[in-house]
Amino acid sequence: MSALLMAIYFQGLDPAELRTWTAAMIDSGERLDLSGIGRPTVDKHSTGGVGDKVSLILAPLVASCGAAVPQLSGRGLGHTGGTLDKLEAISGWRSSLRNEEIRAVLQTAGCVICAAGPGLAPADRRLYALRDVTGTVESIPLIASSIMSKKIAEGTAALVLDVKVGSGAFMRDEPQARELAQTMVTLGAEHGVATSALLTRMDTPLGRAVGNAVEVGEAVATLRGEGPADLVEVTLALAREMLRLAGIDADPAAALASGRALDTWRAMIRAQGGDPDAPLPGARHRRPVLPAPASGWLQRLDARAVGVAAWRLGAGRAVKEDPVSPAAGVRCLAKPGERVEQGQPLLELLTDDESRFGRAEAALAGAVTVGDRPPEVAPLVIEHL
Amino acid sequence: MSALLMAIYFQGLDPAELRTWTAAMIDSGERLDLSGIGRPTVDKHSTGGVGDKVSLILAPLVASCGAAVPQLSGRGLGHTGGTLDKLEAISGWRSSLRNEEIRAVLQTAGCVICAAGPGLAPADRRLYALRDVTGTVESIPLIASSIMSKKIAEGTAALVLDVKVGSGAFMRDEPQARELAQTMVTLGAEHGVATSALLTRMDTPLGRAVGNAVEVGEAVATLRGEGPADLVEVTLALAREMLRLAGIDADPAAALASGRALDTWRAMIRAQGGDPDAPLPGARHRRPVLPAPASGWLQRLDARAVGVAAWRLGAGRAVKEDPVSPAAGVRCLAKPGERVEQGQPLLELLTDDESRFGRAEAALAGAVTVGDRPPEVAPLVIEHL
Repeated sequence: MSALLMAIYFQGLDPAELRTWTAAMIDSGERLDLSGIGRPTVDKHSTGGVGDKVSLILAPLVASCGAAVPQLSGRGLGHTGGTLDKLEAISGWRSSLRNEEIRAVLQTAGCVICAAGPGLAPADRRLYALRDVTGTVESIPLIASSIMSKKIAEGTAALVLDVKVGSGAFMRDEPQARELAQTMVTLGAEHGVATSALLTRMDTPLGRAVGNAVEVGEAVATLRGEGPADLVEVTLALAREMLRLAGIDADPAAALASGRALDTWRAMIRAQGGDPDAPLPGARHRRPVLPAPASGWLQRLDARAVGVAAWRLGAGRAVKEDPVSPAAGVRCLAKPGERVEQGQPLLELLTDDESRFGRAEAALAGAVTVGDRPPEVAPLVIEHL
Repeated sequence: MSALLMAIYFQGLDPAELRTWTAAMIDSGERLDLSGIGRPTVDKHSTGGVGDKVSLILAPLVASCGAAVPQLSGRGLGHTGGTLDKLEAISGWRSSLRNEEIRAVLQTAGCVICAAGPGLAPADRRLYALRDVTGTVESIPLIASSIMSKKIAEGTAALVLDVKVGSGAFMRDEPQARELAQTMVTLGAEHGVATSALLTRMDTPLGRAVGNAVEVGEAVATLRGEGPADLVEVTLALAREMLRLAGIDADPAAALASGRALDTWRAMIRAQGGDPDAPLPGARHRRPVLPAPASGWLQRLDARAVGVAAWRLGAGRAVKEDPVSPAAGVRCLAKPGERVEQGQPLLELLTDDESRFGRAEAALAGAVTVGDRPPEVAPLVIEHL
């Protein structure tokens, strides 16, 4: 299998091979049956970005508009963080649910965010472990089949993919990201899942919070209608696409404004044992860093550097078995397009372990550019496939 | 390691990587010290051909001219047969010698043909087993390092490679064969072994005998000065090259004619427990096959087809553990360039197991061409590297 993965890494898979390969991965385990839910099911998957807490907002938002959102997620590995790690900052919240529980939460709250159990595409787990040690992670057919086998096995009728492109994303350039997106859209269609994809920009963190508890806090603020503009823009674009695929004519911006999405969030957190009113863990140590090198407009704040800093502060894990720190992370005190004064700290680092500050700061060398005029604004949603 | 082999299969190794890789294979085991032999050591390796009994003649021939020839060999796998399998048709002859025995036979007879023991480049054994099951056998750097690691570990000071090219060879086309030859010549030089290579044609069986006992018989006839022209030509070309590398000014044709080479053969066989006068095993069943489709000149007799037929008759093995039949094989009743009459059988099949005739004959479909004029004669030795 290691040899086969390496052959695929170098030679790719043609469409028929990829279809067969993905079908075999799905058939390696069970396929959830969500047909009795009584509402159209639609899910979202992101290829991962820095500060990407979109799933936390999107699931209750789309559910509050009438869809059922079964979001079976993974954990973070590397600099981009994982949805389950973020939600586990909430006191009592459980990521591991049995299949009956998944269906029950979905019925009660309209959405569920939980761990993809060992029964869904178990081949992927084994294959991923081999890819990790053989240097074959970065292969479009292997990435596409890994993601899609789990999403198809999860039983959703429709799926929107947020394929991130840029310095903070797994895919650094657009042609590669587009190829990955198109490959997954085709695989979804071949397996009866209505699938579309947005290519979205990931050159700077999404929102201002990067970490676990801090991202939950920002997600809740967004559900209250107080979210940062970039995060709201990407979330609404994905929500509209999910609702379109689900055949639901509703305005997600209104659901945010009305508080309905927040109510759904609270119901979902409670249904999974969490207390939506519990205070989120705060970091024992905070350090303002990265003084602006000049006065002017912040042109660039590099997503990958911020992601790596948050990771080193304890927000992410180096190997699968590591624990993550709920309190660790980074706050962006300024975002590209904003006016900054020379010497003003651009980030605040958060951690329970002071000894981590040094290596986190080291990750930030060269992470910002300040210019004497506002930067060009590139659209966040690059393309719709 | 399987993943690495597949990566090498697709990406190759650059010269520095290949040097390091081969050195690691050599260092995985012992390196014989033949410095006390008192005569210049020189060996030969063939990439394998149909009817290729050259080693059997060459070792005693070159030894009879004053060199020491330590020929540590492998077994046949596939359609080309193995030197040890052939010699084991001789009653009492032993292929497995301890290192002290190897040196003793070399001292006594001037040459030794025996199994490369498990102490020489043991990594190669493990790697080959993986290549076999991962489909990575046909890779020039992997072939070159496999051959050269064993030959370098064997302790010879000089080495001549017979790189076969054509339908019956592992390398079907000249550019590939040339690349393999050049790669091995470079590896030899890098490890202090004076190495050269001949590219020789392998489109039709060498000599008239293909199998085990029948090839020994033809080798002995050649040592008596009664060899077929093509076999003698290739053998003398390789012998001259070996003597040149060993710094010995002698005429191998004279050594064949005088009977000195035959004497050396007899001494070597005896020193390894064999009886050079014992009758060779004959096959219980013989069948003339492949009637000439027309009268004329035999233009083509396909080496691979004949090799596969001999293999299926029992001369070769399908998997490493299979026994081989000493008596099985094929005799060529006509060779390209000879006049044939319509209906005349062109081959004789030999086996102890009549049930094998059918599948052997099936391998011969399309194996011959008869024309109304003699074929163009292509030189047997294509190139000298």
